[in-house]
Amino acid sequence: MPLATIALGDSTFTLRRARRDDLAPLVALIAADALRAGEDSAAPEHLARYERAFDAIDADPAQTLVTVEAPDGQVAGTMQLTLIPGLSRGGASRMQVEAVRIAEGLRGSGLGSAMLRWAVDEARRRGAALVQLTSDARRTDARRFYERLGFEPTHVGFKLFL
Amino acid sequence: MPLATIALGDSTFTLRRARRDDLAPLVALIAADALRAGEDSAAPEHLARYERAFDAIDADPAQTLVTVEAPDGQVAGTMQLTLIPGLSRGGASRMQVEAVRIAEGLRGSGLGSAMLRWAVDEARRRGAALVQLTSDARRTDARRFYERLGFEPTHVGFKLFL
Repeated sequence: MPLATIALGDSTFTLRRARRDDLAPLVALIAADALRAGEDSAAPEHLARYERAFDAIDADPAQTLVTVEAPDGQVAGTMQLTLIPGLSRGGASRMQVEAVRIAEGLRGSGLGSAMLRWAVDEARRRGAALVQLTSDARRTDARRFYERLGFEPTHVGFKLFL
Repeated sequence: MPLATIALGDSTFTLRRARRDDLAPLVALIAADALRAGEDSAAPEHLARYERAFDAIDADPAQTLVTVEAPDGQVAGTMQLTLIPGLSRGGASRMQVEAVRIAEGLRGSGLGSAMLRWAVDEARRRGAALVQLTSDARRTDARRFYERLGFEPTHVGFKLFL
């Protein structure tokens, strides 16, 4: 049962919950990120740690890890949604989007925009009052991409690595 | 059973999981935020929506809503931690910090720094590889505060309200 379908020209892409047997192509997509060279590896000897992470994501009802499947069955994109309940803003839940990745040949095709529009719709269906994400400040293309979709860059995103 | 204690001079503050009967002072603390005037209200007729939000937070094992109690039993601060599993960065979990608030008379006292240092330690204990948070770009004091604690402002935080 797909989450949604996205039509681009004559091609139909399918959004569905990620399965454990998607892990190798999902990790390859994550590892292909130019800003994160070397942090991730789809080599078989590293698969076990991703399997453990996948199982933690899959067991948590607040998480939706999305696989975007191309018409030929290849993995074309991914993103992770997390529904976070909270007290502030009138007891609002927020939907957080992490780890958005689009296969290189499909960037600029409209697939990413359609994925994010679906994520916003899904946030609304799940009762969230806002959608939030952070993007590395060096990704100037990503900034324009999110602004075109209506996201406002009002916050500074801080990270501390342990 | 407290999560931790924080000694400031002769005073000992207690970090503990928030209880439902903390809600009125917690919401009052959130409503006192100068940048969010009018979004939150501790008036009794609004309590039900915060109770629903509290119950959702409390039922989710990935969430830790912290109440900081002053020696006199008053609520002195709060923050919410969310443990988010993920595939990227080698299948890393991240700890997200939201809704950090310190009672006005205690800002600059070192209480906030001690709360955040505890949050970082807790992230490490729970196996997270990073701690992340966003702060409204207008909060220049907050930016210095997080930078002093070792957080790096590498990301842009985007929000879209529904």
